[in-house]
Amino acid sequence: MVATVNEFDQTATNPGQRGPAEHQRREQILRAAGEHFRHYGYRKTTVADLAKAIGLSPAYIYKFFVSKQAIGEAVCALCLGERTGALRKIVEETASPVESIRKIYKSLALSGARLFFEDRKMHDIVTASFEERWGNLEAYNHDLIGIIRRVLIRGRELGEFERKTSLEEACRAIQHTMQSFFHPILLEQNLDHLEEDATAVANLVLRSLAP
Amino acid sequence: MVATVNEFDQTATNPGQRGPAEHQRREQILRAAGEHFRHYGYRKTTVADLAKAIGLSPAYIYKFFVSKQAIGEAVCALCLGERTGALRKIVEETASPVESIRKIYKSLALSGARLFFEDRKMHDIVTASFEERWGNLEAYNHDLIGIIRRVLIRGRELGEFERKTSLEEACRAIQHTMQSFFHPILLEQNLDHLEEDATAVANLVLRSLAP
Repeated sequence: MVATVNEFDQTATNPGQRGPAEHQRREQILRAAGEHFRHYGYRKTTVADLAKAIGLSPAYIYKFFVSKQAIGEAVCALCLGERTGALRKIVEETASPVESIRKIYKSLALSGARLFFEDRKMHDIVTASFEERWGNLEAYNHDLIGIIRRVLIRGRELGEFERKTSLEEACRAIQHTMQSFFHPILLEQNLDHLEEDATAVANLVLRSLAP
Repeated sequence: MVATVNEFDQTATNPGQRGPAEHQRREQILRAAGEHFRHYGYRKTTVADLAKAIGLSPAYIYKFFVSKQAIGEAVCALCLGERTGALRKIVEETASPVESIRKIYKSLALSGARLFFEDRKMHDIVTASFEERWGNLEAYNHDLIGIIRRVLIRGRELGEFERKTSLEEACRAIQHTMQSFFHPILLEQNLDHLEEDATAVANLVLRSLAP
């Protein structure tokens, strides 16, 4: 369903989402959507279901989100934001960039596995966002590249990492090597050896970064 | 549909496939299946459609393949076998293991893109085999690891690659770094930068292999 243009501004940073981002209603809708999706699954939930659960009209919800997918994207953004938040914390709290790289792979693998085992319906929404390339992925990939870049710059400054390779090429290549652990479809197919493989790939990347 | 046990032996190496593998009929069924899938898509084709196209009874086809998926697996195995065949040829014909690594990433990316652009219906079947983890993937992954192992052993013997890392760990880690280029879902989402990214990841792997 495509909503018509309404009186609210389109927020440039969150395509598909309308109205002032700080609006309490928006948070309320997202919380209710998260609960509903977790319980009934994303596919089976309609905007009408959500509206009923919150006690709002569907039209009112469409003032904040242009479609069900826009709600799904915001819910995924929150979920993946927790993941990148954990990575940022690792980078902040770990003195050694070598150690940061190791911990980042492990954190991606474990947080992905945790979502799969403990919050399957949310894992399914995140999977849909990867399969259908929802808008939330751009911010996620951007965040991930930013985190990698930060570790690489620090490692280069400290002399722990080589400096000859173009920084951007190294960042992109490293992000590719993380796919097995952050892409929900690959992660799901690799659960048996996840931690071991994450360590093996982190070690490979660290060998590639050695000065 | 699950076929009942019949008079033919189950071939141990091809689970789901029955009868003497060299049987001409088997080849004939696979050729017709390939054509049919390419034209109408895997999902829309039934074993009855295939039987009609070849002029055989469905029961006769079930003497060779236990299910439609078993036929799909054999068709995918042929398609992916061409890909690993091309990689084997690269390894045989390239003197330098460093060069082999570069060419392997490029070949994976290009053959995957070619399938997507020029043979979409076959790409879709291969995608289904990855999504649903069909039996053909085990042989493919085994082949791929074997090819990587061969290059690594040669590179270590020639002194082009480091020898400290466990060979098996290095092989598995390298295979993970290839996912972006051989996994059809990832490849499909990465078509814009495919060759450039394949080069970047190959370079990363080569830095990790440096003695």
